[in-house]
Formats: sequence, C-alpha cells, structure tokens
Amino acid sequence: MKQAARKINSNIVLALDLPHGEPKELLPKAKQILEAVHPHVCAVKFNRHLILPLGLFTNVSELLSQAKGYGLPTIMDCKINDIGNTNRIIAEYYFKAGFDAVIANPFVGWEEGLQPVFETAKRQNRGVILLVYMSHKGAREGYGQKTFTEEADQPVFQYRLFAQKALRWSADGAVVGATYPEKIRELYSILGGKVPIYSPGIGAQGGNIERTIRSGAKYLIVGRAITLAKDPSKAAEKMKIIAQESLEKNL
Amino acid sequence: MKQAARKINSNIVLALDLPHGEPKELLPKAKQILEAVHPHVCAVKFNRHLILPLGLFTNVSELLSQAKGYGLPTIMDCKINDIGNTNRIIAEYYFKAGFDAVIANPFVGWEEGLQPVFETAKRQNRGVILLVYMSHKGAREGYGQKTFTEEADQPVFQYRLFAQKALRWSADGAVVGATYPEKIRELYSILGGKVPIYSPGIGAQGGNIERTIRSGAKYLIVGRAITLAKDPSKAAEKMKIIAQESLEKNL
Repeated sequence: MKQAARKINSNIVLALDLPHGEPKELLPKAKQILEAVHPHVCAVKFNRHLILPLGLFTNVSELLSQAKGYGLPTIMDCKINDIGNTNRIIAEYYFKAGFDAVIANPFVGWEEGLQPVFETAKRQNRGVILLVYMSHKGAREGYGQKTFTEEADQPVFQYRLFAQKALRWSADGAVVGATYPEKIRELYSILGGKVPIYSPGIGAQGGNIERTIRSGAKYLIVGRAITLAKDPSKAAEKMKIIAQESLEKNL
Repeated sequence: MKQAARKINSNIVLALDLPHGEPKELLPKAKQILEAVHPHVCAVKFNRHLILPLGLFTNVSELLSQAKGYGLPTIMDCKINDIGNTNRIIAEYYFKAGFDAVIANPFVGWEEGLQPVFETAKRQNRGVILLVYMSHKGAREGYGQKTFTEEADQPVFQYRLFAQKALRWSADGAVVGATYPEKIRELYSILGGKVPIYSPGIGAQGGNIERTIRSGAKYLIVGRAITLAKDPSKAAEKMKIIAQESLEKNL
C-alpha cells in the first residue's frame, strides 16, 4: 500500500461500487471507471456490489488483473464476521482470486473467530484490515457503545477496544469513518503510526477530505463520489490533489 | 419455515457447506447431498463456501431451484454488517437469486445499518434472521460482553440487547449457538414464541441435539455433521428423529 501510494502520489482508495445492475452492464462500466481513475488512486476496494452479480472467479478476476496491471493493490471489503472455519474459507477464496487484503469485523473475536484469518493472511503474505468505527449513523449503536471486558473493570468504548485489538493482532489497517473526524483523532492517538487509518464516507456520506486527513487518516476510501461522478477521472484527480495538500500541511 | 417443518416433519436446517474445492467438483457434490438429504430437512442454509467458488447467479441459482423443487425454503448466511446502502444491495442480490431469508448482524445498528435490509425484506415478503449469540469460542468476546446503552443505566449483556432488537425489529429468527445451551435457555425466556431460535454448532462444533432443543431452540442448523458424513442422508435422518423426539418431550 505504502509503495503504491508513494509511486502514484495518491492516498485515495477507489471503492469500485456500482448500483444494482445487470452483469453485462456492470462489467464494462467497472472496467471503464478503473481505467479512467487508475492514475489517481493507490488501491482498489471491492464489495458485494460487484462480487454478487459478476462472480468472484469469472468477471471479478478480470477486474483484479486489470488493477494489478496498473500496479494497484486490491482490498476485499467482505467485513468477515463468521466462525473461524468459515472465515478461513472466505479468506482463502478471496486470496486465491487475487485480493491482497480482506476487511474483517473484530466483534467476532479471536478464538475460532479471526485467528484463522490472520494466520491465513500471514502465511500468504496478505493483509487484514479491521473495522474500528464505521461511517454510518447506526455505528454508534455498536461501535460507539460502552462495554466492560474481562480485563478492564472500568467501562471502555467499543471502538477503543477494537483499536487495541488491531494493535494486538498486528492488523494492517483500521477502518474509521470520515463522518466521525473526532473518532479518527482519538483513534489515531491509540494507533499512532503502527496501524494506518483507512477512512470511508467521503462525499456521498458527508465526510470531508481535509478534516479527515487532519484528524489522522492515512487513506481515504471513496466510492460513489467517484463512481457516480459525471467524470470519474476528474473527480478522483481533484480529491487526490486536496488529499495531498492536506497531507503536506500535516507534515 | 413453519409450514416446511410441519410438512417434512423435521426441524433440521441443512447448512450446505463444503470444504474448499474446485467448482466442477463442488457443484455435483452439493447437488448430490441436497438430493440425498432433502426428505429429512426443513430448509437449506448457504454460506460463502458455495457462493464464492460457484457464483450466485450461475451455479448457486441451480441449487436454489433444486431446493425449491423439494419445497424447501432457503437461507443465505451472509451475516450482513455493512452500511445501509451496501446492505440493501447485498439483500437485493440474494433475494433476486431466490433466497427466502438473509442472516444479519445486529451489531451494525438500525439507522443506515439494518433498516434498509428489513424494509427490503418486508417489501419482497422475505425474512431476516439476526445473530444473537454465535457458536464459536470467541463469541464471548463480543456477543458475551457486558455493555452500557443509552437507555439502560445498568450494564447488560450484548446478546440480551440483540434479543431485544430481534423483538423490536420483528426479526424472523434469532441465531444462538448450540454450544451455549444455557444462553439458548436465557434467550428463549426473552424471545419466547415470538422469534424462533435457530441453533448452529451441532456435531462438528460439539453441540448436542437433545440439550439444544430442551433449552428452547426451534430449528437446528447442521452442516459438517451431515455434509461430511459417509452417508449424509442417514446422518440427517438420524438427527431428524432425535430432534423430533426431543421436541415431543418438550410438549
């Protein structure tokens, strides 16, 4: 990720999400956006928007090859949260298809939960990025709740617990919503330079690039504000420049 | 579900999960198991074990048609936990492919979380089943933690909160692991007859049929103990009979 970001001089991760559609329209559309946008992004994130209609080992594989051709790492936003045996199988299929990293939900826990995912990723030299605070309104219900743990006798916010897990489990990234800049700031103080913050929710969901970067996010995940733009390439370029300027101000 | 269970006189939900494999082996194997086992189960649950290698709208559709042909409802165990817009798209694709219900994680919350899933399901006359306590060891980390909420000034167990959400959101089922019979009992006292309990973790994970039913589970989700059995049909039939006997004892 770091290498791609430096080479391309962008910290924008393209979320290649398209609205509900027919495969024969979705595939050319996705290819076209990827081609247009690739000079301005440092990675591509996929979600079920494409996996379900296109199929992982057929059309999505084509898109993954295309991204690789541009030197872009790929992230599968599958938000893994099943039992360990299933989680391992999910990760194995996504890695086999060519993904460099998967996103997982730490709520599912370690033992017979995410342990097999981290082990599989390590063995295959891939990454695991953890959800720490999501970008939607309902995030406060779960991510924002106060909890007790076996270790702590004082209540602690769920997202702070998840950040501690990201450090303890050596996660390759932490997802924190751009819609909650104060949470990014707080979590950056825990995660420091050890676990980079990936921030979705720019644009369609209301997050602001400058504030997100200033709060401590390293990568901005942008979907609809690029994929639904009239000129996706221009939209991505503009965001790349604002993000780079904000990063330079941070230095 | 109720109709299918009564007609077939079984409360066993087949989890059609196969180990990592090649599509050309997985599809005939899955078809064969479904054919052999169908007289002894009341529904079929799919997971990423088949969706990822086989593709939702190609081979999995064939399996869904096969299940419908036997009069069996189908459940997609996608454990939805994304932002609302994505959750809606995920649910729409699975419903479009023919699934009767999806499983979702209440941790993601209501607003811009699961609300669009429940609304989509209601509009299309499909079901939403919520995770309340999972079957693996790490479940105690998240599902088993004590939390504070805005409403309650006393700490309350996460799974009890989830059960309250299952009631409030009119969920069509609640997943509680067979490996935690005492949790089934406790949750049954909250959910009563209003939200039926689906219990995975029988067999491979160590759950026991009689104890699970006695504790209050309505449906038993069984995967590897059937799919990896030498004779899947015999294995399913045996479980069906034990489950029916246990249910009759409960009356």
